[in-house]
Amino acid sequence: MNSLAKFFAKSFSKQQQLGTYSFSFVKPTRNASFKKLQESDINYFRSFLDSHSILTDKESITPFNQDWNKIFHGETQLVLQPKTTEQLAKIMKYCNEQKIAVVPQGGNTGLVGGSVPVHDEIVVSLNKMNKVLNFDQNTQVVTVEAGCILEALNDYLKPHNCEVPVDLAAKGSCQIGGNIATHAGGIRLIKYGPLKAHVLGLEIVTPTGQILDLTNTMRKDNTGFDLKQLFIGSEGTLGIITKANIAAFKQDKLNNLILVQCKDFNQALQVRNEAKSFLGKDISALEYLDGITLDIVLNNSRGKTYNPFTNMKDNDKKAYILIEISCNYNIDEVVERLFNRLEELGIYEDMVSSQSEEQYKMLWHLRDGVAEAVVHIGSNVAYDISCDPKYFGEITSIMRERCKEIAETTSCGHIGDGNLHLMFAAHNEECVKKMEEEHEKFLYDWVKSVGGSISAEHGIGLQKRPYLWEHKNQVALDYMKKLKDVFDPNHILNPYKIV
Amino acid sequence: MNSLAKFFAKSFSKQQQLGTYSFSFVKPTRNASFKKLQESDINYFRSFLDSHSILTDKESITPFNQDWNKIFHGETQLVLQPKTTEQLAKIMKYCNEQKIAVVPQGGNTGLVGGSVPVHDEIVVSLNKMNKVLNFDQNTQVVTVEAGCILEALNDYLKPHNCEVPVDLAAKGSCQIGGNIATHAGGIRLIKYGPLKAHVLGLEIVTPTGQILDLTNTMRKDNTGFDLKQLFIGSEGTLGIITKANIAAFKQDKLNNLILVQCKDFNQALQVRNEAKSFLGKDISALEYLDGITLDIVLNNSRGKTYNPFTNMKDNDKKAYILIEISCNYNIDEVVERLFNRLEELGIYEDMVSSQSEEQYKMLWHLRDGVAEAVVHIGSNVAYDISCDPKYFGEITSIMRERCKEIAETTSCGHIGDGNLHLMFAAHNEECVKKMEEEHEKFLYDWVKSVGGSISAEHGIGLQKRPYLWEHKNQVALDYMKKLKDVFDPNHILNPYKIV
Repeated sequence: MNSLAKFFAKSFSKQQQLGTYSFSFVKPTRNASFKKLQESDINYFRSFLDSHSILTDKESITPFNQDWNKIFHGETQLVLQPKTTEQLAKIMKYCNEQKIAVVPQGGNTGLVGGSVPVHDEIVVSLNKMNKVLNFDQNTQVVTVEAGCILEALNDYLKPHNCEVPVDLAAKGSCQIGGNIATHAGGIRLIKYGPLKAHVLGLEIVTPTGQILDLTNTMRKDNTGFDLKQLFIGSEGTLGIITKANIAAFKQDKLNNLILVQCKDFNQALQVRNEAKSFLGKDISALEYLDGITLDIVLNNSRGKTYNPFTNMKDNDKKAYILIEISCNYNIDEVVERLFNRLEELGIYEDMVSSQSEEQYKMLWHLRDGVAEAVVHIGSNVAYDISCDPKYFGEITSIMRERCKEIAETTSCGHIGDGNLHLMFAAHNEECVKKMEEEHEKFLYDWVKSVGGSISAEHGIGLQKRPYLWEHKNQVALDYMKKLKDVFDPNHILNPYKIV
Repeated sequence: MNSLAKFFAKSFSKQQQLGTYSFSFVKPTRNASFKKLQESDINYFRSFLDSHSILTDKESITPFNQDWNKIFHGETQLVLQPKTTEQLAKIMKYCNEQKIAVVPQGGNTGLVGGSVPVHDEIVVSLNKMNKVLNFDQNTQVVTVEAGCILEALNDYLKPHNCEVPVDLAAKGSCQIGGNIATHAGGIRLIKYGPLKAHVLGLEIVTPTGQILDLTNTMRKDNTGFDLKQLFIGSEGTLGIITKANIAAFKQDKLNNLILVQCKDFNQALQVRNEAKSFLGKDISALEYLDGITLDIVLNNSRGKTYNPFTNMKDNDKKAYILIEISCNYNIDEVVERLFNRLEELGIYEDMVSSQSEEQYKMLWHLRDGVAEAVVHIGSNVAYDISCDPKYFGEITSIMRERCKEIAETTSCGHIGDGNLHLMFAAHNEECVKKMEEEHEKFLYDWVKSVGGSISAEHGIGLQKRPYLWEHKNQVALDYMKKLKDVFDPNHILNPYKIV
């Protein structure tokens, strides 16, 4: 039995363990200056929140105490779900005065433990502030409450052939406020640029309970410091986003998905560079996965995808590039031109393009389905890094070799913008620990050595906090701390995260 | 003689007055806590700067004391031109300790008095830090010193068919550091989105002389607060940008320029909306000017442009939309499709498209040449506002009626992104005063009433500071002040501007 076959055989016996391991990192000590919640506090909240907005029974609050991957577990006793900005401001004013720590929570789909309590912080959920407030068809600006689910927002915009410029796997659960607070990345960054470019305005409740009105529907507005940018990507540590004005985009009328099979990573890199240069703005996604990862997906896809290629010899050396093309006219011609160009350069082994909506979905699932496949064969220890795409192959080989005894290594990512996801299907709890203790620091040091980022799109949260302090320079960290002091003098908002 | 003919006749007698008026606003009082420059200070700078980096003679420093429009005049006695970040940090450390006020200056092309001294602040010029340091063809990230002139940067990128995602009239003089510090807008925002989306990293010298290294070449980097955003658009009041990493873009291979003549503003608005919706990302500029403005340009263009239309009857009611299309293939087909679409909707009177490079330039000059034409017929009192494009016609009519005795009103702008430039050719100094005293506040109040911005792309600087305090809410202003305190505890950097 070769090694691939081996771990596929193994994979099915491990399904029951999905997502049940916990990270080995040490919980930060509870900040003793925070007040412990008392009945009188809850009574105060009862004075202006209705009973549905206050959750105290264990069953109701359990989901708020653990993250998406069930890795991080908090001990909150209270979840508040305000319905208005004013209610939230009142909550924060009181908590600041009383020094009660608070964790803001959106869809709770984050992957670094940023949206769950560490100890007994109360949770403020945006669940009940979820309305789309306005959409202007001509300016294409949508105004929305923070708790609106990303997919619901896009469903709202669909009749106008519009979408917000962010797309990610958790779209059915994540909330737009959380997307903004964590500066979510995803597959559309190559098409639209970063989300922060398209957030035109924000309404914020500060940790001291002020309403900071930075709403704006103008594309251009150079009136003083761009304060709202501080809240984008600060993971709910500086303020709570309650409302956003976002520039939506017309969807292109036509699209097509092409999967290119390359003999090795270097060829895939050539395809990536050529596609980017040749198609320019007609690229709406540019993704990568390697041959071993493709095999893992194919063997764990449960009918959600298929293998479109016939020659799979030496697939463990192969690499794949997924190119989504979007444009408004002549897409067949564009696809043909690209095929001819790659043919001319002789930099591929095989290529397929989607011929139907179903094929489109199935091809996408080869890339989309990696995380799901990984949890089918082990405990997913996932890393989200940025580096020059030319290093994707190298770091995959290095890590796969280092970790071969304890995990299957998958390698995929947004190669168009240099964001690599290395996901390790660890064989068991002990292997998870080994990953973290013996290989994590190595990986981050390597990232640093090539000028990359230890968090491309997932953020810092609780998980990467110790590494942040190693990877940022002291002057920058000092200013981050000072800004925290400005907005949150008692450090009650989302404590133990980032700073 | 009709009214148009009247002011064209007048215009030629006014050319000698170009740009010589001064605003009537009251200079803020000198902050008495700032030290007055002494010979010993200059001697200190001599200890680590060479003689070419220190300007003290009147002739050399005069250009640094007045702005592009020669409206704002400072009284500096000293201009320093450091060659390295370390030299600049040493200057700032000393100035902070000694409480010597400092104005950072790039290409000095700003229009709101933000880059010139108000009193005797010393000027720190970025002129001698002007190198392109690196360009990576695959990641398309360019690393550049702040003093590099925008056009020089694009010339550097041209052999790679790349450009930085900002373009404005002052490109031959403005510096990239200044573009970033003022968050320059311009005609390409509709294509690329805001500049702040594409500034990946910055190096900053803080007012206290620290080097704040926020350089980064990754497209995705979610490691803590995005501090660099604070410096983008803060007009040199929080720190001095010394270096930038910028995402460059492949230029599209083909472009074409279309000028659409519409019977009135409402028809022009329809064309604007239809072009935006129909062409989507293939629009690289979407501009507007009205008939009266077109006439003024034509009558003052001195051979730089021409009138491509035959029917100019009732031109004072007409409006014009300039559409630049950029794509990589089949541009003729795209242009034809657009023509057919507008034909089908019956929303234009006439249309032309550029058939040669020369025609392309001449058509562009109809829009580009407005400011130049205005100064040929009067003193240019210019306003830069954002609002929903549907209001462009209304506010132009209102202001033209209000100001008809004292100025000719031109109306043009980036209608694609809602940025209107109202430029008034005031008849004389007294009329300039009247503009400011009787009509400026009215305009800004109107902007506020329609939810617009009093500064779309020019910034606040010295000129709009009093209005900022009326137009921003108090909570936002308070936080702006607190951030100023964090970075510049002695308020020595670019005093009297914004905050």
